[in-house]
Amino acid sequence: MVGYAFMGAAHSQAWRTVNRVYDLPAQVRMALVCGRDTGKVAEAADRLGWDAHTTDWRRLVESDEIDVVDICTPGDSHAEIALAALAAGKHVLCEKPLANTVAEAREMAAAAVAAQAAGVRSMCGFTYRRVPAVTLMRRMVAEGRLGTIRHVRAAYLQDWIVDPQFPLVWRLQKDKAGSGALGDIGAHIIDMTQYVTGQRITGVSAITETFVKQRPLPAEYSGLAAQAAGNGVADGQGPDMGPVTVDDAAVFVARLDDGALATYEASRFATGRKNALRVEINGSLGTLVFDLERLNELEFYDATRPAAEQGFTRILVTEAEHPYMSAWWPPGHIIGYEHSFTHQARDLVEAIATGVDPAPSFVDGLQVQLVLDAVTRSAELGSTWTHVEPALEAVAA
Amino acid sequence: MVGYAFMGAAHSQAWRTVNRVYDLPAQVRMALVCGRDTGKVAEAADRLGWDAHTTDWRRLVESDEIDVVDICTPGDSHAEIALAALAAGKHVLCEKPLANTVAEAREMAAAAVAAQAAGVRSMCGFTYRRVPAVTLMRRMVAEGRLGTIRHVRAAYLQDWIVDPQFPLVWRLQKDKAGSGALGDIGAHIIDMTQYVTGQRITGVSAITETFVKQRPLPAEYSGLAAQAAGNGVADGQGPDMGPVTVDDAAVFVARLDDGALATYEASRFATGRKNALRVEINGSLGTLVFDLERLNELEFYDATRPAAEQGFTRILVTEAEHPYMSAWWPPGHIIGYEHSFTHQARDLVEAIATGVDPAPSFVDGLQVQLVLDAVTRSAELGSTWTHVEPALEAVAA
Amino acid sequence: MVGYAFMGAAHSQAWRTVNRVYDLPAQVRMALVCGRDTGKVAEAADRLGWDAHTTDWRRLVESDEIDVVDICTPGDSHAEIALAALAAGKHVLCEKPLANTVAEAREMAAAAVAAQAAGVRSMCGFTYRRVPAVTLMRRMVAEGRLGTIRHVRAAYLQDWIVDPQFPLVWRLQKDKAGSGALGDIGAHIIDMTQYVTGQRITGVSAITETFVKQRPLPAEYSGLAAQAAGNGVADGQGPDMGPVTVDDAAVFVARLDDGALATYEASRFATGRKNALRVEINGSLGTLVFDLERLNELEFYDATRPAAEQGFTRILVTEAEHPYMSAWWPPGHIIGYEHSFTHQARDLVEAIATGVDPAPSFVDGLQVQLVLDAVTRSAELGSTWTHVEPALEAVAA
Amino acid sequence: MVGYAFMGAAHSQAWRTVNRVYDLPAQVRMALVCGRDTGKVAEAADRLGWDAHTTDWRRLVESDEIDVVDICTPGDSHAEIALAALAAGKHVLCEKPLANTVAEAREMAAAAVAAQAAGVRSMCGFTYRRVPAVTLMRRMVAEGRLGTIRHVRAAYLQDWIVDPQFPLVWRLQKDKAGSGALGDIGAHIIDMTQYVTGQRITGVSAITETFVKQRPLPAEYSGLAAQAAGNGVADGQGPDMGPVTVDDAAVFVARLDDGALATYEASRFATGRKNALRVEINGSLGTLVFDLERLNELEFYDATRPAAEQGFTRILVTEAEHPYMSAWWPPGHIIGYEHSFTHQARDLVEAIATGVDPAPSFVDGLQVQLVLDAVTRSAELGSTWTHVEPALEAVAA
Repeated sequence: MVGYAFMGAAHSQAWRTVNRVYDLPAQVRMALVCGRDTGKVAEAADRLGWDAHTTDWRRLVESDEIDVVDICTPGDSHAEIALAALAAGKHVLCEKPLANTVAEAREMAAAAVAAQAAGVRSMCGFTYRRVPAVTLMRRMVAEGRLGTIRHVRAAYLQDWIVDPQFPLVWRLQKDKAGSGALGDIGAHIIDMTQYVTGQRITGVSAITETFVKQRPLPAEYSGLAAQAAGNGVADGQGPDMGPVTVDDAAVFVARLDDGALATYEASRFATGRKNALRVEINGSLGTLVFDLERLNELEFYDATRPAAEQGFTRILVTEAEHPYMSAWWPPGHIIGYEHSFTHQARDLVEAIATGVDPAPSFVDGLQVQLVLDAVTRSAELGSTWTHVEPALEAVAA
Repeated sequence: MVGYAFMGAAHSQAWRTVNRVYDLPAQVRMALVCGRDTGKVAEAADRLGWDAHTTDWRRLVESDEIDVVDICTPGDSHAEIALAALAAGKHVLCEKPLANTVAEAREMAAAAVAAQAAGVRSMCGFTYRRVPAVTLMRRMVAEGRLGTIRHVRAAYLQDWIVDPQFPLVWRLQKDKAGSGALGDIGAHIIDMTQYVTGQRITGVSAITETFVKQRPLPAEYSGLAAQAAGNGVADGQGPDMGPVTVDDAAVFVARLDDGALATYEASRFATGRKNALRVEINGSLGTLVFDLERLNELEFYDATRPAAEQGFTRILVTEAEHPYMSAWWPPGHIIGYEHSFTHQARDLVEAIATGVDPAPSFVDGLQVQLVLDAVTRSAELGSTWTHVEPALEAVAA
Repeated sequence: MVGYAFMGAAHSQAWRTVNRVYDLPAQVRMALVCGRDTGKVAEAADRLGWDAHTTDWRRLVESDEIDVVDICTPGDSHAEIALAALAAGKHVLCEKPLANTVAEAREMAAAAVAAQAAGVRSMCGFTYRRVPAVTLMRRMVAEGRLGTIRHVRAAYLQDWIVDPQFPLVWRLQKDKAGSGALGDIGAHIIDMTQYVTGQRITGVSAITETFVKQRPLPAEYSGLAAQAAGNGVADGQGPDMGPVTVDDAAVFVARLDDGALATYEASRFATGRKNALRVEINGSLGTLVFDLERLNELEFYDATRPAAEQGFTRILVTEAEHPYMSAWWPPGHIIGYEHSFTHQARDLVEAIATGVDPAPSFVDGLQVQLVLDAVTRSAELGSTWTHVEPALEAVAA
Repeated sequence: MVGYAFMGAAHSQAWRTVNRVYDLPAQVRMALVCGRDTGKVAEAADRLGWDAHTTDWRRLVESDEIDVVDICTPGDSHAEIALAALAAGKHVLCEKPLANTVAEAREMAAAAVAAQAAGVRSMCGFTYRRVPAVTLMRRMVAEGRLGTIRHVRAAYLQDWIVDPQFPLVWRLQKDKAGSGALGDIGAHIIDMTQYVTGQRITGVSAITETFVKQRPLPAEYSGLAAQAAGNGVADGQGPDMGPVTVDDAAVFVARLDDGALATYEASRFATGRKNALRVEINGSLGTLVFDLERLNELEFYDATRPAAEQGFTRILVTEAEHPYMSAWWPPGHIIGYEHSFTHQARDLVEAIATGVDPAPSFVDGLQVQLVLDAVTRSAELGSTWTHVEPALEAVAA
C-alpha cells in the first residue's frame, strides 16, 4: 500500500478484516506500506498492522512477494505508480479520482486494458458502489423496477472548510488534488449515478466557485480528524496565507444517454452537511433515494403498488438477502462507513483469485475523469454546454 | 373572483375563513364570482358560498360594490383582467405566474406601480411565502442567522403526468399555461428563494424537456381532484391525441446577486413526489431546509452552537411565536395547505385597510417572469448562460 | 353549540366549511351559540359566525328551530346538557371524554340507546378517528393486512405545563375536568386503538403522577393560544397558589381481547412533544404507525412483500383513494388539525339525514370512560391489575 | 474467549481492531478461544484469528499467559466460568445478562467486589453504553441539560420469531437463556436507562407473554445470520415440536428513584422492527431520544432555547468532540454496530492497564438482574407492583 493517511487507514481496516468475515480463495497478507516520511510510515506500519514499511514505492512494484499494489496517495502520483505496477504485472487498486487529468487517466486506462490480456487486474476505488444499499439500487434498476429513467439528482455536500481560517491543506491545492470538491466528492456522485443507472453522462453545463480565495498555510497538525480532512499536509510554516487553487463547489446540469435530466452538486460549503451524499433517481415506474449519512437505508417508491398504499419504503439494508450483508450481523445491526472497503477488498481478492476483471475498471475511472474535465471546461467557458466523450472511444483514440 | 376551479376553491376557503380567525379592520364579503360556463359557475357560487355569479368578468371591474378583484384563471387571461381592474381602481390579487409572457408581466407591473399613487393595491399570489415556516425562514435570514449565503438548492417535484395516458389538460398547452412545470411550479421556487434570501437570480443555464410529446385529448371529466390537476379543461372530444406544447421538466443552475450558487428543478415526472417543494439554503453560519409536504416543519442548523450539540433542529412551526400561528390552534396542532391562502387574504385586507402596498408586488411577479423567460431562452439555446434583468429596470424600460 | 373556546372554534370552522367541501343532503345553519358570559359569547358569536347567542343552554334544547346540539364545554356539564337534549329529541354531538364519571357516562349511553328508537342520533367527539390516516389504519386492519394483533403502543405526549408557573386552569381541576392528561389526551389513544384494532382493552395496570402539586391561580388572560390551553379559565385572582387535583401523567400496560399486549402513556410533561399522539400496532403480517404531528402520513410495514424490499412505507394520505380526501386538494397538498372536525360534521349530517346511528356512539364513549376509570383505580391501588367491563354490559347493568 | 458465535464474532472484531485505532498502554493478543465442538472451534479460531483453541474453558482460567477471560456463552454458564476466572485472578469481561438468576448474579457480583482488592477487574458487557450517542446522552444528563427527569420510555423491538415456524433455538429455552425477550434485549434498555439517568428502577408492574407456545425443534443450520439469531443451536433432530419456555415479549411500567415514570417494552414480535432499541428521556429542561437503528444520531430538545427556535436537534454523533469518535473517520462517516465492542475493549484495556475498576461492573449487572427478576415475578403475580432491591444491598445481603 502506498499512502497511509485517511484512505490508508480505511484500506488497512479492510485488508485486516476481509478474511475474518468472508470465505475467500486467498488470504491477504499486509506486506509492505510506503510513505514519504520514514518515521511516520514506521509509526503507521506499526499502528495499522503492516509487516514492513518503506519510503520508496518502487519497492512494492519490484518485490516478488507482492501481488497487489494499493494506491492511496493524492491524485498527482496515481499515474506514475499505477503504470509502473501494471507494467510489473502487479494487480492494482487505485483510489479515486483515477488521476488528476484526462491525459493521465487515458494512459492508465489503456495500460489497464492492455494488462488484462496478461491476467493483471485493476480496479478504481469508487467504494461507494459497494455500500449494500447502493449495490441494491443498481440491482433494482437493472431489474427494471424504475422503468425508464427520467431524473437523476445527486449532491455530495460537506462543510469542513466553511471557516475561512481552515488551512490550505493539499486537498485545496490544484497541483496535488487536481480539483477541489469536484474531483474529491463530485467524482463519487458521477460514478455512482452512472453505475446505478447503467448510463453515461453525455453533456454538462456547469458553474464552479471558490468562495474563500486565500487561506492560512497549514502548520503541522496532528490528530486523526485533521488527517482525515487533509492527510499528508505539507509541514506548515505558520500564519502566512496562500491561494486556494481549486473549486470549493461545483454545480451542473446534465443529460444521460437515454434522455434523463440530471442535476449534480458537490460542495464543501454546505453548512451542517457532513458527508451528505444524496442520490435520487426517478423512473417511470418508481424512485430510489439514497443518503450516505444513513447508508444502511434505501428508500424505494414503487408506483406499481395499489394507489392507496404507495409511498416511500425505507428499506433497512441489513438483511441476509441484501448485497454483502449475510456475512455481517443480524438484521437491524447496522454497518458503517469502512465496511464498503472490506466489500471492495473481498471483490478484488475474488476477482484476482478467479481470474475475472473487477469493476469499476480504470476505463470506468476514465469515464468519470472525462465528466470532471467537461465540468471544468464548461465552467471556464461561462457554463457552455460541453459534450462528454465515451471513455471507450477515449481509450481507443 | 374570476375562476372557480382549484385556485378558486382555495381562495374561497380563505375569504370565508379570514374574518373568523383574524381580527381585521374590514369584513370580507364574497360578492361575485365569474366563470365561462353559466351552469357551472352558478353551481360553484352555490357550493363555494358566493353571493352572485356571472360569465362576464367585466362586471366585476365595473361594479361599484366590488373593491377587490381576485384573478384565479389560467395565465393567458391575467393581463387583460388585471389591467382593466387596475384601471378601474380595483385592488387586484392575481394568481401566479403573473402572466404568460414577460411583455404582459411588464405591462402589468407598470400599471400596478402607476396605480399605487392612487392607493390601488396589487398582489401576486405566491402564497407559499405565507406558509409560516417560509415566513420564518425569511425572518431568520434577514436577522443574519445564516451569515453569507453560499448555496440555494430548490426543487418542486410532482408526478401527476407520469402516465402517458394522462390527458392533454390546459396546463399542458402553451397558449393557455405559458409553460409547463417551469411556470406552474418552478415559478414558486424561484419566488420563494428570492424572497427568503432577499436576493435576485442574475443568470441561468438550463435544460427543459418534454418526455411525453403526445397525449390523449381530454374527455369531460369531473371530480375535485381532477379539477385540481387540470381545472378549466376544455370539453374533450375523446381518444384523439394532441401535442404537448409545454415542458414536463426544467432544471437549471443559477447565480444570486451575492455570488451564491443555486440549482433549481421543476418536474411533473418525479415519481412518488406529490407536492415536494424543497428548498435548502446554506450560509456561512447556518442552514435552513423546508419541505412543503411537511409544511409545519422547518429545519435549522445553527453552526454557532457548541460543536458537540450542532445538528439540524426540526422546528415545529406551530407556536404562538411563529408567523401567523397565534390565531390558529395550540402548539403541535398542524395547519394545512389552504391556510396560506387565509394568511394571504389577511395580509391583503390589512394592506388595503391600512393603505400600504403588499408583497409580493406585481414587480416581484415580473421578476419571476424574467427568470422563467431566461430559463426558456437558455434551454432553447443549448443551455447557454442567460442573464436575468432586474425587474425594476424592466419596468422602467 | 354550547361552549365557544378551543373546541368551539374548531367545531365552528367545521360547521362553516362542511357544505363548501362536501355534497350533503342537508345544509348546516349555525343558529345559536351558548356561553356563560354574555359579553364574551356575543363576541364569540360574531367572530365565529353564529346567528345568535345566549347564556342559557336550555334555549338550545327548547328551540324548535334547532336540530342538533353540539356540546363543547368541560366534562362536568356534558351529562346534564346531553340528557336534556336527547330527551328533547335533539341529535347530540358531545365532546370527549363523554363525561367525568362512569356513572354519568353510563346514564348518557343508556339515554342515547333509548333515543335511537325515536331516530335521535348521538355521537361522541373522538375526532381523531376521522383523520384520514387513522380511518385508513382501521380499514387496513379490518381487511386483515396486519394479521393477528400482537402489540399496541400508544402515547399522547404534550408539554404545555412543564413550567411550574403555568397557572391552575380548569383542565387542572378535577371537579371540572374529571382527570388530567388521562382524560384529556389519554382518552384519545384509548379510543383510537380500540377503534383501529376493533378490540377492547380488558384490563390495565397503571401509574399516575402529579409532578407539580401547587400552581398559581390564573389571572384573567387572553389570546387564543392561552384559551386553547385552558379555555374557560375562571377569572383569576392573582399570584395565590392552588392545588392541582388531576394527574400530570398516566402510564399503563394493558391487554386487548385477543391477547395483544399494550402500553399507553399520556403526559403533559414530555418536554418538546407538543401534540405527539403516536400509535403503533404490530401484527403477525405487518405494522402500522401513526403520528398526529405528521397526520398526513401513515407508515405501513408489509411483511408479505419480498424480503429484500420490506420496509416501512410512508404513505402520504392525500390521494383521492384515501378516506375523506377526494373532496380536498390534489395529492401532496396536506390538510391540518381542524379538517377532522369537518369530516366529523360531514358524517354526522349524513347519518342524521340518512337515518343511521353514527360512530363513535355514546356507548363507545362509555367504553373509554370505563378504561379511564380502571386506570384511575389501578393507580390508586398501587398498580393492581384492574379489569375493564364491556360497555354494553355496563349499559345493560 | 469462551464462545465464538454471534457475540464471539463481535468481540473478536473488537480485540483485533482496538490497537489499530486507539493508542493504548497495552497490546491485545488473541490467545485462546474455547468452544464445545472441537472441529467448530478450530474453524472459528482460524476464521476469527485466534492463536489457539480448546474445548475446555478451564484452560483459559489456568493458563499463565492469559490475563483476561472474555465470556460469550449463553447465560447458564456465565457464573461458573466467571467465578473460576476471578478466583484465578483473571480480569473478566462477561456478556449480558450477567447470569440467568439473581442468586448467580449476586454471587458473581460479590466475587467481583472481593476481587477488586487484588486488582482484578470485571466488566459486564452492556456494550450499548459505548455507542457514542448513548455515552453522549449520559454526559448531557449528568451536566444537567435535561433538568429533573420526568419520563423514560424505552422499547427494544425485534421481529425474528414472528414466524411460528422459526425453530426452537437456545434463546427460546429457559434453561439456557434464563428468559426470552426480557433478558436478551429488555436487559439492554434496563441498563441503558439506568446508566443514562444515573437512577435506579425502584419498582415495576409487568405483563409477559409467549405468543407461540410450540415451535419446531431446530435442524442443524448454517450461515452467519442464522448463527446470529440462535448461536450455539443444539444439533436438531427434525420437524418435531418443542415447548417455548421463555417470554416472547415483556411490557412494564416502572418508577425511578426520583419519581420519574417509565414504560419498558421488549419484544421479538414487533413486525418490521429489526433491532429497534429506542429510548426517550423527558426532563424539565429538555429531552433526549436515541434509536439503535440510527445509532450515529441523537435527538436533543433544548427547552432553554428561544421559543421560536426550539425543536428536536438531530445531532450526527460523528464529530471529534463526541465520545470515542476522534479515533475513527471524519465527520459524517458513520460507524456501525460492532464499533461499540471496540470501545468496550478500549475501556477495559485502559482500566486494567491503569488500575481502575471499569463500568458497568458486575454490581451493575446484578442491578439489571434484580429488575429482570422483579418483572418476571410481577408478571407471574398478575402484574402486582414489585419492589426492586438496590444491588449494593443485595450484594451485602
